[in-house]
Amino acid sequence: MPKKEKGKLRIASLGGLNEIGKNLTVLEYADDIIIVDCGLGFPDEDMPGIDLVIPDISYLEANKERIRGIVLTHGHEDHIGAIPYVLREINPPIYGTKLTLGIIKNKLTEHILPVIPDLRLVKAGQVVRLGEFAVEFIHANHSIADACCLAITTPLGVVVHSGDFKLDVTPIDGEMMNITRLGEIGRKGVLLLMCESTNAERAGFTPSERKVGKSLEYIFTSNPDKRIVIATFSSNVHRVQQIINVSARHGRKVAITGRSMLNIVSAAVELGYMSVPDGVLVDINEIKRFKPEELTLVTTGSQGEPMSALYRMAFGEHSQVTLGHNDLVVLSSSAIPGNEKLVGRIINELSKNGVSVLHDAVVEVHVSGHACQEELKLMMALTRPKYFMPIHGEYRHLAANRELALDMGIEDRNIFISDIGKVLEIDTKGARFAGTVPAGKVLVDGYGVGDVGNIVLRDRRHLSQDGLIVVVASVDFESGLLISGPDVVSRGFVYVRESEELMDEVKTIATDAIERCLTGRQTVDRMHLKNCVKDDLSKFLYSKTKRKPMVLPVIMNV
Amino acid sequence: MPKKEKGKLRIASLGGLNEIGKNLTVLEYADDIIIVDCGLGFPDEDMPGIDLVIPDISYLEANKERIRGIVLTHGHEDHIGAIPYVLREINPPIYGTKLTLGIIKNKLTEHILPVIPDLRLVKAGQVVRLGEFAVEFIHANHSIADACCLAITTPLGVVVHSGDFKLDVTPIDGEMMNITRLGEIGRKGVLLLMCESTNAERAGFTPSERKVGKSLEYIFTSNPDKRIVIATFSSNVHRVQQIINVSARHGRKVAITGRSMLNIVSAAVELGYMSVPDGVLVDINEIKRFKPEELTLVTTGSQGEPMSALYRMAFGEHSQVTLGHNDLVVLSSSAIPGNEKLVGRIINELSKNGVSVLHDAVVEVHVSGHACQEELKLMMALTRPKYFMPIHGEYRHLAANRELALDMGIEDRNIFISDIGKVLEIDTKGARFAGTVPAGKVLVDGYGVGDVGNIVLRDRRHLSQDGLIVVVASVDFESGLLISGPDVVSRGFVYVRESEELMDEVKTIATDAIERCLTGRQTVDRMHLKNCVKDDLSKFLYSKTKRKPMVLPVIMNV
Repeated sequence: MPKKEKGKLRIASLGGLNEIGKNLTVLEYADDIIIVDCGLGFPDEDMPGIDLVIPDISYLEANKERIRGIVLTHGHEDHIGAIPYVLREINPPIYGTKLTLGIIKNKLTEHILPVIPDLRLVKAGQVVRLGEFAVEFIHANHSIADACCLAITTPLGVVVHSGDFKLDVTPIDGEMMNITRLGEIGRKGVLLLMCESTNAERAGFTPSERKVGKSLEYIFTSNPDKRIVIATFSSNVHRVQQIINVSARHGRKVAITGRSMLNIVSAAVELGYMSVPDGVLVDINEIKRFKPEELTLVTTGSQGEPMSALYRMAFGEHSQVTLGHNDLVVLSSSAIPGNEKLVGRIINELSKNGVSVLHDAVVEVHVSGHACQEELKLMMALTRPKYFMPIHGEYRHLAANRELALDMGIEDRNIFISDIGKVLEIDTKGARFAGTVPAGKVLVDGYGVGDVGNIVLRDRRHLSQDGLIVVVASVDFESGLLISGPDVVSRGFVYVRESEELMDEVKTIATDAIERCLTGRQTVDRMHLKNCVKDDLSKFLYSKTKRKPMVLPVIMNV
Repeated sequence: MPKKEKGKLRIASLGGLNEIGKNLTVLEYADDIIIVDCGLGFPDEDMPGIDLVIPDISYLEANKERIRGIVLTHGHEDHIGAIPYVLREINPPIYGTKLTLGIIKNKLTEHILPVIPDLRLVKAGQVVRLGEFAVEFIHANHSIADACCLAITTPLGVVVHSGDFKLDVTPIDGEMMNITRLGEIGRKGVLLLMCESTNAERAGFTPSERKVGKSLEYIFTSNPDKRIVIATFSSNVHRVQQIINVSARHGRKVAITGRSMLNIVSAAVELGYMSVPDGVLVDINEIKRFKPEELTLVTTGSQGEPMSALYRMAFGEHSQVTLGHNDLVVLSSSAIPGNEKLVGRIINELSKNGVSVLHDAVVEVHVSGHACQEELKLMMALTRPKYFMPIHGEYRHLAANRELALDMGIEDRNIFISDIGKVLEIDTKGARFAGTVPAGKVLVDGYGVGDVGNIVLRDRRHLSQDGLIVVVASVDFESGLLISGPDVVSRGFVYVRESEELMDEVKTIATDAIERCLTGRQTVDRMHLKNCVKDDLSKFLYSKTKRKPMVLPVIMNV
């Protein structure tokens, strides 16, 4: 058979580069497209009121018929969270491991979808053929069970996508990351390694999840008289398993609280990812039957989220749990950047109520789920890629990962720090950036997907800084006379009852501006009138208060 | 002489308890009041638009004539920053060391004051008599030069106020904290120790400032070809001194940029707190004359502050400095909680421009200025106080300091965790909480001091989440007829051009609500009319968008 002329492999991420979250990578060869992960992101502090951020998938919508499938590395929100939104536009088969699909099913019950999703179960070790691509799922360790790296065979060679990973030599489920398989693949030759960068700035190895178990053992042993309340990430099935194990060993019952924790634990137990000794789990409504020292509570809220179960406990709003001197709260987590103050607020409130609090700054009750520098280098050493692309991280993380690749002898010209929408093109001649595809952030606010953009956000930020002043006047557009008003209403600017003088001055200045604009004109120009009011008032208010409230003139034609 | 009956010592903090910053403590005996420190705080994230927070000093205003003086421990903003505002209401003599007063003088030039401040210079070792009080200033180490602890002799005994401190055995200025004097005072007996709590959760000892010098030496040695840009806290005079020293040793010139850095360095040099070898300092406008490897730049912006010199350099907006591959930026600082994302943004931007970045997570380029657990215990061991009050910190820090005091054998009933405004009363019979004085947060926004309160902030937060909808209608109040409108204006809610249908519905619902309210009524009730519009629209918008914009109806009488 004559060797077919080889085409181009094109790779673009629609999320996860220069940002944390909303991971989504597109691989294209000839007529085939596959998608790796489909995650959501959380809003930055400059996006007030926004609930979630999802990738702009207009490129995928435009190429619907070429998409052969979505392959998922694991079940964290930043890798699967956009699926309910993406399914409104495209509906390719979705491949994932058992726990990953279990979490998605759970999630989809909260959404009304126009289609029936096509979820297809795979096991680590399995290979899925998707057009010109063959995707092998390879077991990895991470802070959620059932995570995988992917080895994607393309006509041009193998692309290894690390997903999120760490190397845990003593994992809780007994299965170390399959580095042997990665080594085998590396020996045969890897075209491109796309490698996560979350911890690329951190030296050394990430400790084993088992380290947390040892800390918990110590905490349980030294607090035999207290009720122990442990907050952690609900998706960290192995963490919860360790809490159950240590509780059982110490003769404690375990009660679970918080919606997402209950959801994930029941899914994990049902799917066989968690094993609970008989009689250990008790309902949160039954805890009154037990003494404090007979109980462990497992809860959500480790990020200080308002209205999470831990938050409600701390602020005395939890219907089943009241915390006090008999309680020890363990935050088995670390604060995600930006959440430090929320977490601090809970620690303060608990301390005020006499609750003892342990967190990761005091004792090692949390380990990361991501590879540190030595593990990242190990990944490179095993796969020995020709080309390298750091993924999953802000620029600082991508740049740090690039430095590691240089240390490992990968040539500078073969390392590609990309950006969302930027296309890396690989063919038999080499690799290069080649144009872009549409990419960006789509903001989700309530039921609205994409109806809040830069202008709306800019207005929200402006309103939050100095509030607003609404000036309303009725004008007879025919006679050019001011009929009524101006009335002035302000919100978020000053406390009006104590600023009557200022508000009177505002009214005078608005009246003057309107009358100046109306005098001597044949026709009333509404826009001109509004601008006069706005300019005069803004200038006056800034000189008087050094603030810039939004000035909103409304001129009615009566 | 017959022994006079002893009165009561009353101690209340107007700031610095259950919060970081705005430290201000009041001590009262008989007719005399003294004030320790007079600091400002920074706004929390739930105070949008606020510039600064200062203590409510209405208690001091009401007792003006009894105030004998303000004594200052050191020149940081959280200890002196409220002085320009407080001087508008009271004008007692202000006692501080040379650098502290130097910084205040600098600061006061930016404010127009109704009085001439009465600044009185003291030296460590000196005692100032203030009515029934005698205040001894005792040299301490801290992240600013010229810091002091205070030993305040009262008729009932000695109160030691730690100020902010650490024990630096090898300080840059050669003067270790005077723990000998503290020990002498302790031997004679201390009634009460008020001790800072910032690092009470951290084990061990805080490293010496000299550690940073060693790290800098290593960085300079291993980067002989790069221009080195170091961002740090401008008030850390010893840090800047070390940067100058290491630069001079490596044959580099030092240029300084950033307003507050220039201010403090010139004050420190003038007052003799910094010594600069001849010819080392160059003006920032002259740096083009030197090669990169001949230069060190010292800059503000280590907290990622927008518009700081480092921020402008990172984003290409600094008029004298453009950063690139030849530059190494060192963040000689740690992010203050809440600033992590701002700092991250700068690191990302620098990395994108090819600038190498070193920060405290990578190499030890920063040490804290506050005592860790072993130093706090040392303070207790030296002073051996009867009563103990942890100060300067959120509740978690105060509670952690209390644990240390218990470890040191101070009795539980002699430890007082207080709150702002809460009065601790001590007499010969003992110590107890006894009532409160007015205390709180006064918000500074632009020129306004105290004109923004809870209602305004609540509105700002509401506006920032979902924006607003203004509905304006003209009604003839005599005939009860709708004359014009309703007109609808929205900001920060949806992108109006793409939501015309929704806005039309809003108009219809507003019209219906107004007409329903006007029909069959004899008099027009403006409040009722507004509530109808508000309720109907809020319900409709929530059901349609799951958002709750502020609805602002304005009804004009035409």
